[in-house]
Amino acid sequence: MSVLEQAAAARIAAIDLAGATRAEKDKALLLMADRLVERSDDIVAANAVDIANGRENGIGEAMIDRLTLTTERVAAMADGLRQLAALPDPIGDVVRGSTLANGLELRQVRVPFGVVGMIYEGRPNVTADAAGICLKSGNAALLRGSGSAFSSNAAIVSVLRKAVTDAGLPADTIQLLDATTRDSVKELMRARGLVDVLIPRGGASLIKTVVEQSTVPVIETGVGNCHVYVDSAADLEKALAVTVNSKTQRLSTCNTAESLLVHTEIAERFLPLVLEEFASHGVTVHGDARVAGYSDDVVAATEDDWGTEYLAADISVAVVDSLDDALDHIRRYGTGHTEAIVSESVTATRRFVAGVDAAAVMVNASTRFTDGGEFGFGAEIGISTQKLHARGPMGLPELTSTKYVVTGNGHTR
Amino acid sequence: MSVLEQAAAARIAAIDLAGATRAEKDKALLLMADRLVERSDDIVAANAVDIANGRENGIGEAMIDRLTLTTERVAAMADGLRQLAALPDPIGDVVRGSTLANGLELRQVRVPFGVVGMIYEGRPNVTADAAGICLKSGNAALLRGSGSAFSSNAAIVSVLRKAVTDAGLPADTIQLLDATTRDSVKELMRARGLVDVLIPRGGASLIKTVVEQSTVPVIETGVGNCHVYVDSAADLEKALAVTVNSKTQRLSTCNTAESLLVHTEIAERFLPLVLEEFASHGVTVHGDARVAGYSDDVVAATEDDWGTEYLAADISVAVVDSLDDALDHIRRYGTGHTEAIVSESVTATRRFVAGVDAAAVMVNASTRFTDGGEFGFGAEIGISTQKLHARGPMGLPELTSTKYVVTGNGHTR
Repeated sequence: MSVLEQAAAARIAAIDLAGATRAEKDKALLLMADRLVERSDDIVAANAVDIANGRENGIGEAMIDRLTLTTERVAAMADGLRQLAALPDPIGDVVRGSTLANGLELRQVRVPFGVVGMIYEGRPNVTADAAGICLKSGNAALLRGSGSAFSSNAAIVSVLRKAVTDAGLPADTIQLLDATTRDSVKELMRARGLVDVLIPRGGASLIKTVVEQSTVPVIETGVGNCHVYVDSAADLEKALAVTVNSKTQRLSTCNTAESLLVHTEIAERFLPLVLEEFASHGVTVHGDARVAGYSDDVVAATEDDWGTEYLAADISVAVVDSLDDALDHIRRYGTGHTEAIVSESVTATRRFVAGVDAAAVMVNASTRFTDGGEFGFGAEIGISTQKLHARGPMGLPELTSTKYVVTGNGHTR
Repeated sequence: MSVLEQAAAARIAAIDLAGATRAEKDKALLLMADRLVERSDDIVAANAVDIANGRENGIGEAMIDRLTLTTERVAAMADGLRQLAALPDPIGDVVRGSTLANGLELRQVRVPFGVVGMIYEGRPNVTADAAGICLKSGNAALLRGSGSAFSSNAAIVSVLRKAVTDAGLPADTIQLLDATTRDSVKELMRARGLVDVLIPRGGASLIKTVVEQSTVPVIETGVGNCHVYVDSAADLEKALAVTVNSKTQRLSTCNTAESLLVHTEIAERFLPLVLEEFASHGVTVHGDARVAGYSDDVVAATEDDWGTEYLAADISVAVVDSLDDALDHIRRYGTGHTEAIVSESVTATRRFVAGVDAAAVMVNASTRFTDGGEFGFGAEIGISTQKLHARGPMGLPELTSTKYVVTGNGHTR
């Protein structure tokens, strides 16, 4: 089947799915979880094919690790689906409601988008996650994973489709697209009218391609060149804790800090402490001339460094003369993901919060908190860095639209 | 200045504007209103140039009427701005807020988009409307009106910019783009990163062009092929009132009904009544074979008729065998704007509401009620027919994004 044929089948499935009750959807999710566990051996065997291919193609051990499925990892995928079943159903929520002056009853009700396309890279567990999140939010899912995980993804989707059918919902609620060719991505991006929204998850170049070429509406996710700004009025201990945690707690995530800005008035006290901490964590500091004065280990920062999302044990560090200079720097190089200030000053934090244009602003807290799980959303589809529709961590409600229902008694204008 | 230079200036203005209080914005809106009235003669004189050009270019009298500004129409524009000043400010609203288990304070706060691009046709009063709505919602506006109204729009924007400056806000909050060339539309559509959202208002071909070619996120507005479905369980009197009002109360709006579907079991009683009403209102009926049996005046409907938004004294009419057939017809030909059912049956209306995928569903009420003013929103930027971000009539909150503000005390993960 072509992508357009799959999308058309998804549209039909989506009509049934939109009418499914929470009970029906949760039953499907629990069955999907059980079946993944039961068929764990088959899934791990399919995964072995991908791993063998990966080794043959010479992909690195870090990638091999991300690609690898074990019985435990399959069980974790199943647990994720069970957790989704336990979350409230966003569909049918009345977002706004009133009775108008003329007696018309106005209700704005949450409804599914219809068909959601996901384009993602890397780990095959995203396949079960994405399928589950779409199902719970009443959307048919078109999943375009990476070519390197195609055998694993095909095995997972085959198990999930069978479970969905056995639970009484249409199999085409979950469909895997051909990942052996780039054409399937292109077709998906042009399927306006059949696909309601496209969510790319992955590296910057994938996201850029989709954003620029898709005629299907896109929710942009992920690139985070996150800054920590240590204000002149910062508490040194909090500044150190927040900075080090933001950079080192996990290196490869989009909410990891990639740049540190230090107010000149606190630089002399703070920089020696933080540079020592970075050194002990094996983090390479790319600093400006003022930072270089504090340690011989500082690598001279180039213009490129300020705009780089390292996703590695590197950080750019600059000394700034004022909070305004910090805001200007962030406006220039930030990606609108997460920006943090450490300060005891109400005036300074108020100005920083107002002046930063980002999905999340942290005050005396690690950038690593920008996360659906941390925010208490229960499930996360990704972190939106765009301003339209959803901004920041996206939970189930962010995968829905609304519909106005207006009830009268023969009302006319 | 090029469009990109104007957009860059708008971004800078938007930073100041985002920090403006409601009092500052309302002061600007009231001054804009006063100045429009004071400078009414100049605006009407500038409008005379557009009208003379229009006559020379042979545009029709209906278009001339839409283009014409009088002292009264300028006063109405000013009143619109005063009404905006009276509306609550959406900026700063806390949409969601909680304290997380670890003590972090999470707030989701409404913030402006930043820079909003509007592409519109026709009446110059949209210029003041759009400028006011963007200002009130804290957004800098890039206005691309029609070439036919360029002299009028330039006069209006000049007055508004002066008023904005006198009120202490940046002039570049409101900018008019060159309407003498299509290049300005093209540049605007490619200004991703400088312009946050683009809202096209106008005919179907304008909207299609913008949706397909823009890399800036778009909010799609307007095309409405709206249906009225008269169910077998309809009250005849209500059905007649709703149908006739939906079609004839105003012919040229996107929420006007363009198609009528009548359940076969009520056709014999309802069609003679409604056809007579249509005849007395001068509405041409494009009917299927079953409808044609009821009147010699029925024009045979072609396949094209079912998908046509007439915006005129025409309506397509079909007899359907069931509610499901009506839903299928609407799925095939509807544009997701407004669909109405007339029925006394709870079961039928419930199925119709659930089965229709549209921005608004009317139960025993005219399609003409899908309107920001009727919904009590106070101001309307347009009616979104897309599912992302905003669906249905858009008020001030729909011109905003949100930002998460997370406050801790040195919190780390």
